[in-house]
Amino acid sequence: MFNLISIKNPLEQVEGFYCGGVHVGLRPSNDPDVAFIRSDALCDVSAQFTTNRFQAAPIKHFFRYPKNFQTNFLLMNAKNANAMTGERGIADIDTIFQSLPSDLSIQNPIMSSTGVIGYPLDIPKITSAFEKFDFHGKNSKETARAIMTTDTFEKQIGFRIELSDGNYFHIAAIAKGAGMINPAMATMLCFIITDADIPKEDMDTLLKEATEHSFNRISVDGDTSTNDTVMLLANHARAYYDKRAFKEALNLITKELSMQILQDGEGATKVVAFEVKNATTEAEALKAAKNLSNSLLVKTALFGEDPNWGRIASTIGASGISCDEEKLQIYYDDLLIYSAQSPILDAKKEAQAMKIMQQSSFKIICDLGMGSEDATCYGCDLSYDYVKINADYRT
Amino acid sequence: MFNLISIKNPLEQVEGFYCGGVHVGLRPSNDPDVAFIRSDALCDVSAQFTTNRFQAAPIKHFFRYPKNFQTNFLLMNAKNANAMTGERGIADIDTIFQSLPSDLSIQNPIMSSTGVIGYPLDIPKITSAFEKFDFHGKNSKETARAIMTTDTFEKQIGFRIELSDGNYFHIAAIAKGAGMINPAMATMLCFIITDADIPKEDMDTLLKEATEHSFNRISVDGDTSTNDTVMLLANHARAYYDKRAFKEALNLITKELSMQILQDGEGATKVVAFEVKNATTEAEALKAAKNLSNSLLVKTALFGEDPNWGRIASTIGASGISCDEEKLQIYYDDLLIYSAQSPILDAKKEAQAMKIMQQSSFKIICDLGMGSEDATCYGCDLSYDYVKINADYRT
Repeated sequence: MFNLISIKNPLEQVEGFYCGGVHVGLRPSNDPDVAFIRSDALCDVSAQFTTNRFQAAPIKHFFRYPKNFQTNFLLMNAKNANAMTGERGIADIDTIFQSLPSDLSIQNPIMSSTGVIGYPLDIPKITSAFEKFDFHGKNSKETARAIMTTDTFEKQIGFRIELSDGNYFHIAAIAKGAGMINPAMATMLCFIITDADIPKEDMDTLLKEATEHSFNRISVDGDTSTNDTVMLLANHARAYYDKRAFKEALNLITKELSMQILQDGEGATKVVAFEVKNATTEAEALKAAKNLSNSLLVKTALFGEDPNWGRIASTIGASGISCDEEKLQIYYDDLLIYSAQSPILDAKKEAQAMKIMQQSSFKIICDLGMGSEDATCYGCDLSYDYVKINADYRT
Repeated sequence: MFNLISIKNPLEQVEGFYCGGVHVGLRPSNDPDVAFIRSDALCDVSAQFTTNRFQAAPIKHFFRYPKNFQTNFLLMNAKNANAMTGERGIADIDTIFQSLPSDLSIQNPIMSSTGVIGYPLDIPKITSAFEKFDFHGKNSKETARAIMTTDTFEKQIGFRIELSDGNYFHIAAIAKGAGMINPAMATMLCFIITDADIPKEDMDTLLKEATEHSFNRISVDGDTSTNDTVMLLANHARAYYDKRAFKEALNLITKELSMQILQDGEGATKVVAFEVKNATTEAEALKAAKNLSNSLLVKTALFGEDPNWGRIASTIGASGISCDEEKLQIYYDDLLIYSAQSPILDAKKEAQAMKIMQQSSFKIICDLGMGSEDATCYGCDLSYDYVKINADYRT
């Protein structure tokens, strides 16, 4: 037995961690654009990175540390991805870290960046943050805001996990998303910190599972960025841990943040769960669900609130999985909108379907009737604003 | 030696074929919506169909004929795909064909449909075309117009092929495209007729090759329809044939029609050739080129005329092929826009790149520097109008 209690300004509640964000001029507005997370004690680190072959410099920098290294400092910046910047991009990170104050005993510092690809970091601007940071303060909101790009709201969440024996520990996270979001990650960043006394082995397996079922199942636009990162830092500041409780909290956090990323997808007006049921294999269910969440014709029909189930069926068929039009059933929420026995969308059913589609979130369920394996992916609609935002992103 | 001479109203020039299109009320406008192509003599048939698992009823109907069947009649309609209509959809085609005039000695008639998925054909309206058709007339333009959906212009092309001995034969084609266009086909229809005395074996191999290098390498939106068809009918009305000449004409026809489909892609303002060079394998070159032509972030950057090569690089990296940022070079036409040695987009290069992107067609060349295999795919930009057209397609 355990209780998960939602906490406000969540990063601030995790013992032994400090955090903050400041504005140094990487972005034109006065919003924070550089942030840090720091711990008194050294932290174990687990991370899931982008599958993009052109991993950004901060990811390559991370992998230069020995396996199972520990750290007590994470630096983040917006507006510049430090990707496709070669050896210089990696060296720039080391140069930046040389300016860190020596009294903090920083070991193996990590950097994470998001923004435009192909430009070197502005080292003087970024190191100027070290004069401005309150290294002994805690500001969860400013930290979350500093990593936003086209996000319209900051994303943070956390829990105090109370065990039945009265002991407790914390887990908290921030994330950013908005564009270039696709299963297998996107410039999607998520940093999770905990004071639980979690074994490194559990960190790795639980983070991988949680990522697979959350961030890797959402899609804004089907593109996978060079910088995607989900990272878990554990400083073991509290002596308590319960695997089942931690797992539940971690899954809740990653699921909730991935939903917030979708809701805040560039130009998105609605979030849709694509549930593919009774497939021959789970891999086929997942493939069909991912294809649905990425189909331009499906996404524009969602934006138009057009109950055009033909595009759903066509996308399933085009995905190359085992399926049969005689067995397929398509539901919008609880409304059966297609089966071979009743394929016709009459006026009544169409009106019901349109009402469902007007919601800001709903389900599209495809029961393949082929086997017993299921998978769900989450997507959003494609609006004029997506085109507008992305036609002139750099300006 | 041979000459290819472009012919006007091309379907009309092929000996022994008749064709026409009429309006029967499937669409609200007065444009033709049902069409036929007919031959005096029986024709050999080669066809390439959609890879979508939910093949439309007309395709299933086609496959009920024995292998290597011959036909002398093709019926086409717009506005209704007759897809996801089950056994009824197939039976409806037979019902329609029962109303064909008996004096034409029609054998093994074929149907092809395009339009919305999931509604039964309007049999009385379609058979009413049989009263209106001039079965002994020829009207290439009206035939081409009858299969248009969101196309803005009809697509037809043909050649008279003159051999060095003075003999000649013809090949002509019509096509439609516009949306749901993707490599592996889309509601893309293309009907090619010839009076050449071509062996059935050459029909099959040459059509497959031509399709692979034309229609299967274009993408408007990455979606693959239930109805895609490329069909070649040969009535052998002329006693002449030259394989090399026929192949060249067929490749020209399929390439030109696929480019016209892209130019007329829903909302498209420009056509871009994505050339991936010096890949480890041809399959990897093709995969990267296809991914580039389908990337939403690339397509919106094209629309915005934003020389954001980072999205090109990121898409290559995300495609999972072998690549190396130290070896990659990206060109817009002849302009080297990225190499590891000169990654920075300065103001001068940016101005040059923007000028290239303002053209209605240009090349993006990605030299991977990994091997010696190349592939090219063709795509278009994603504009507000694509969203508009597809958000309310059915209305």
